[in-house]
Amino acid sequence: MKSKRIGKQTMTLSDPPSVLSFAAVGGRMEARGPLKDYFDELSEDHFWGEKTWEKGESTMQKHALSRALEKANLQPRELDAVFAGDLLNQCIGSAFSLREFGIPFYGLYGACSTMGESLSLAALLIDGGFASRVAALTSSHFCTAERQYRMPVPYGSQRTPTAQWTATASGCCILAAEGGGPYVTHVTTGKIVDKGVTDSNNMGAAMAPSAYDTLCALFRDTQTKPEDYDLIVTGDLGKLGHDIVEDFFTRDGMPLGERYTDCGLLLYDLKQQDMHCGASGCGCSASVLNGYLLRGMREGKWNRIIFAPTGALLSPTSSFQGESVPGICHAVILSNTKE
Amino acid sequence: MKSKRIGKQTMTLSDPPSVLSFAAVGGRMEARGPLKDYFDELSEDHFWGEKTWEKGESTMQKHALSRALEKANLQPRELDAVFAGDLLNQCIGSAFSLREFGIPFYGLYGACSTMGESLSLAALLIDGGFASRVAALTSSHFCTAERQYRMPVPYGSQRTPTAQWTATASGCCILAAEGGGPYVTHVTTGKIVDKGVTDSNNMGAAMAPSAYDTLCALFRDTQTKPEDYDLIVTGDLGKLGHDIVEDFFTRDGMPLGERYTDCGLLLYDLKQQDMHCGASGCGCSASVLNGYLLRGMREGKWNRIIFAPTGALLSPTSSFQGESVPGICHAVILSNTKE
Repeated sequence: MKSKRIGKQTMTLSDPPSVLSFAAVGGRMEARGPLKDYFDELSEDHFWGEKTWEKGESTMQKHALSRALEKANLQPRELDAVFAGDLLNQCIGSAFSLREFGIPFYGLYGACSTMGESLSLAALLIDGGFASRVAALTSSHFCTAERQYRMPVPYGSQRTPTAQWTATASGCCILAAEGGGPYVTHVTTGKIVDKGVTDSNNMGAAMAPSAYDTLCALFRDTQTKPEDYDLIVTGDLGKLGHDIVEDFFTRDGMPLGERYTDCGLLLYDLKQQDMHCGASGCGCSASVLNGYLLRGMREGKWNRIIFAPTGALLSPTSSFQGESVPGICHAVILSNTKE
Repeated sequence: MKSKRIGKQTMTLSDPPSVLSFAAVGGRMEARGPLKDYFDELSEDHFWGEKTWEKGESTMQKHALSRALEKANLQPRELDAVFAGDLLNQCIGSAFSLREFGIPFYGLYGACSTMGESLSLAALLIDGGFASRVAALTSSHFCTAERQYRMPVPYGSQRTPTAQWTATASGCCILAAEGGGPYVTHVTTGKIVDKGVTDSNNMGAAMAPSAYDTLCALFRDTQTKPEDYDLIVTGDLGKLGHDIVEDFFTRDGMPLGERYTDCGLLLYDLKQQDMHCGASGCGCSASVLNGYLLRGMREGKWNRIIFAPTGALLSPTSSFQGESVPGICHAVILSNTKE
């Protein structure tokens, strides 16, 4: 068989899988942000009708999957697989959201890069001939993340200027072997990049080098330039991380220009909503992709984009033990044509 | 393209990827168990030269990957990807073990089923034409798991009769498009199965239904019977879970017989080592596969086996919130021929 690998980190899909449907659900802050009209569902109740935030996060994920299934007019049994993960210890957000659906399940941990990782593997599974329809799913929840990584929300901790706000959101994308697009044409797998940043309140700086690394690999492997894309979107670098990536490419004589943005900059109005450096969490890039970005592509606003969410592979334990913050970034190219 | 999906959960590999090399490393208890001669490396130091158990687990994982690379005479850059995960919060065992290798990385969370999940995805990636050589890697550590899931080891907690002992071990398997075998011929993706077991000290009972579910799917999809395999090995069900699966199949009139065993029964001498229901942890099935099982296949002891590790998708938080324990089981068929 002809290899579909081009360069060191990129795979080209021989018959690019199509986005069949997508859905985004969010919470109270997302409902006050500039992308509110792109969500399929917004809840003022951050428990989502449950007794705990963790159960609420699972329920939110269920809603995202159910909405995406509805929009594709599919039953859960018609999916061949689902790739999902989240930020919670042992990824319980995904395990408890999916246990009633009966869909063959591969659990992922890619921190805030999970939407890129799940979309990549879903596309590869279909293009490899192993599946017809696969869902990619992830979520995050401000209150579960604060409790787990920092302080329980009721303590009212102060946030540093470099802090980002974990989105209470979930996104689901269903890919299929056949469909009218957008198509996943290429997948670039990230490597772990750790430049020694130890400030766990500055995720943007910690993850920016991995975004730069993966984007460089993508350009090199596909022999394309930033100008070949209508939009380049990293995930959850926020203001500081976005500017670092911009600086890196400008230094290289390959400025990304106006086409470059970051999901962490799009989800909230940073000033009005007092969001410091922007949004973060698996649910940030997931909901931005599965609302604003994919709808924009379908409407012809952009024809070819790079979606490159980043994850910080730390835990409170690793930080307590003095470790730095390794980052990773998984990129996919989405295009309105199969080229 | 011809679909490689047979039945609801199983995929057949058109040109079965081959095991290129495999390595298992373990700790003090593993060095006193009946499989000690099948390990590539055994350490009396459960810190593996580090200052914390978590760092020790990462180092142990590095050793497993390095040994497997050495045995295949490969450099890290010659791997197209690595699939890895572990039990630690945010999978830091894998993130910190892999950050220096520079290998494109997909992080997984499948609890103790991770060796099955990583091996499955590695095989699919190769057979899909996306990669030539891929590593599947996982680990667990008794002391990191006790601290995280139960009590810090120095507290000297009593263990219940149904408890299993988390293996301090890591296993790595490198698959390649070409090679002399054993080959991964089929992959069966598990669904989450939750029968409502809430005792987090009885993982065997919680996971047995998922092993039964996946094995049933495998037999149904491939139209094979237990007698078609020389060995059927679940992962980490231990004595109780093993007996439950045995009972289920006997009830169905399809007894698994003597060919059925479990990695949790193989790693330790249950009586002499006072191991209650047996071994558990990602590292248990990983080290049993990448030592005893694959060496046995290479030596012709078994020609066709089902390797079906199971995972319990709980966290301390989900148990504190009164949730039951969802299980999952990912199975692969390994064969000395490409059939």
